[in-house]
Amino acid sequence: MIVSNSIIRVRYAETDMMGIAYYGNYFTWFEVARIHLLDSLGIPYRKLEEQGYRLPVLETKAVYKQSVHFDDNIEIKAFLKEMPTVRFTINYELYVESHLVSTGYTCHAFTNITGQPIKPPEIFMIKLKNIFK
Amino acid sequence: MIVSNSIIRVRYAETDMMGIAYYGNYFTWFEVARIHLLDSLGIPYRKLEEQGYRLPVLETKAVYKQSVHFDDNIEIKAFLKEMPTVRFTINYELYVESHLVSTGYTCHAFTNITGQPIKPPEIFMIKLKNIFK
Amino acid sequence: MIVSNSIIRVRYAETDMMGIAYYGNYFTWFEVARIHLLDSLGIPYRKLEEQGYRLPVLETKAVYKQSVHFDDNIEIKAFLKEMPTVRFTINYELYVESHLVSTGYTCHAFTNITGQPIKPPEIFMIKLKNIFK
Amino acid sequence: MIVSNSIIRVRYAETDMMGIAYYGNYFTWFEVARIHLLDSLGIPYRKLEEQGYRLPVLETKAVYKQSVHFDDNIEIKAFLKEMPTVRFTINYELYVESHLVSTGYTCHAFTNITGQPIKPPEIFMIKLKNIFK
Repeated sequence: MIVSNSIIRVRYAETDMMGIAYYGNYFTWFEVARIHLLDSLGIPYRKLEEQGYRLPVLETKAVYKQSVHFDDNIEIKAFLKEMPTVRFTINYELYVESHLVSTGYTCHAFTNITGQPIKPPEIFMIKLKNIFK
Repeated sequence: MIVSNSIIRVRYAETDMMGIAYYGNYFTWFEVARIHLLDSLGIPYRKLEEQGYRLPVLETKAVYKQSVHFDDNIEIKAFLKEMPTVRFTINYELYVESHLVSTGYTCHAFTNITGQPIKPPEIFMIKLKNIFK
Repeated sequence: MIVSNSIIRVRYAETDMMGIAYYGNYFTWFEVARIHLLDSLGIPYRKLEEQGYRLPVLETKAVYKQSVHFDDNIEIKAFLKEMPTVRFTINYELYVESHLVSTGYTCHAFTNITGQPIKPPEIFMIKLKNIFK
Repeated sequence: MIVSNSIIRVRYAETDMMGIAYYGNYFTWFEVARIHLLDSLGIPYRKLEEQGYRLPVLETKAVYKQSVHFDDNIEIKAFLKEMPTVRFTINYELYVESHLVSTGYTCHAFTNITGQPIKPPEIFMIKLKNIFK
C-alpha cells in the first residue's frame, strides 16, 4: 500500500454561509493529496501530462462526518491500496486534530489527450510493481 | 417521486487544463438543481435558512460517463424518490443533448444553526406527504 | 457602445462564512456577462477558440458597493464602449433590484494558442466597425 | 512597511481550458497572502472574526503580466505600506522563479457582523503603531 500525507489549510474562499467548508471543495483537496501521492512516487502529474497522459476522474465519493472550518489545518492521507489495472482507485482520509472528519475516494483511468483510455505509463507500472510485489 | 429540471451553462471558470469541466464543479451544479427542486416544491432553501434550518451534505457521489465542456448546456434532473425521514437523498442525472453524461446523489439531514440534527420543517413534511401518499 | 444584459443567481457555493458572496466570484460573473456580450454580437467565444483565438485577461478591477447574498438575482450589464484596438476593455455594472451593487472592468488582448498577441479576428472587427462607425 | 511572504502551489482546479490559472483565482491567493500577513502580525483573522470583526473587501485589482500554470510555485509578497485609517490597502506581488508575474491590491474596512463600519480593533492599531512609528 502507498500512503502520502498532505496538509491543507482551509481558505476563506472555501467556506460558505453555513460557516463551514463547502462540500464541493473537498474534491479540490482530494486533488492536492493525489498530486502529492504522485510526487511521493517520483512521478509528478505535471510530467505525466507533458508525456501525453491524462488522468481523468471516473467516479468520486465523499462522506462528511464532521464539518471543517476556516483556518482548520486538515491532514489528508491518500492511499493507493492495490496495484492499478486499467482503472484504479485512490482513497482519502481527512483529519483535523487527529479526528477523522471525512473520507472519500476517486476512481481514475489513464487516457491520451483526446480522452481515449490507454495503458498506464511504463514508469508508473514499474514503480508500483516494486511497491506492490 | 418529485423531479425538477434545471439548465446550467458550463462556465470557463469551471473548466480545467484538460479542456473539460473540473470534476469538483459538478457538486455546485448538483446544488443548483437541488435549490431548484426546493423552489419547485414552494419551499425556497433561502426561506428554510431564515427559519433556522440548515441542510448540510452528509455524503455525495458522482459518476462521470462523458466529459462536459465549456459552453455546454447541461440539463440536470433532480429526483426525490422517497419520503424523507431523518436523512434523505437527492439523485441527479446530467444530460448534454439528451445524452446522459453523469449521475450522482447527495445525502442530507436537517440541522439547526449549530449543526444539531432536527426534525424537518412541518411545511416540508406536509408538502411531501401530499406528494408521496 | 455595445451593451448586454445577463442575469445570474448567486449560488450557495459562491457565498462565504461572512454570509455574502466571496469577492473573487464576481470575476466569474464578469465572465458570464462577457460571454453573453460576445453571444449578442453573434461571435460566441467558443467559436473564437475553435478558430485559434484566446482572449486572456490582462487586468481587472472590481468595486464592491453593497454585499450580495445567496439567491440574489444579479443583473449584469456589460459594456464595450470603444472600438477595440490591440487591447480592449469591457466594463461591468451589477444590479440587485435595480440598485447598483458593484462595478468593474476587464482588459483583454487577442492572442494565439501559445499566448502571442495577434490581430483580432476579422469578423470581430467588421461587426464592431459597423456598430462603432 | 509590513511585508509577508507566502507560497502557494497552483492546483489543477485553479486552471482553465486555456491551460493557465483562471484570472479569478488570483483573488483567493491574495486572500491566502493576506491571512498570512495578519498571522505574521500575531493577529490571526480567525481571532478577529471571533471578536466580532469582519474585514470585507471594498475594492480589488489585479494585473496579469505573465500566465501562471498548474504546479507552479507562486511566491506572494503582501505589503501594508501605510498606517491603516478607516480604510486600508494591502498590495500583492506574485513571483514565479523570481519573475514578477502579477500585481494587485485589496482595499478593506473593518465592520461589525452586520456590515457596519467600525474602528479597527485596538490590538491591531497598537501593533501597527509600533511598526509604522
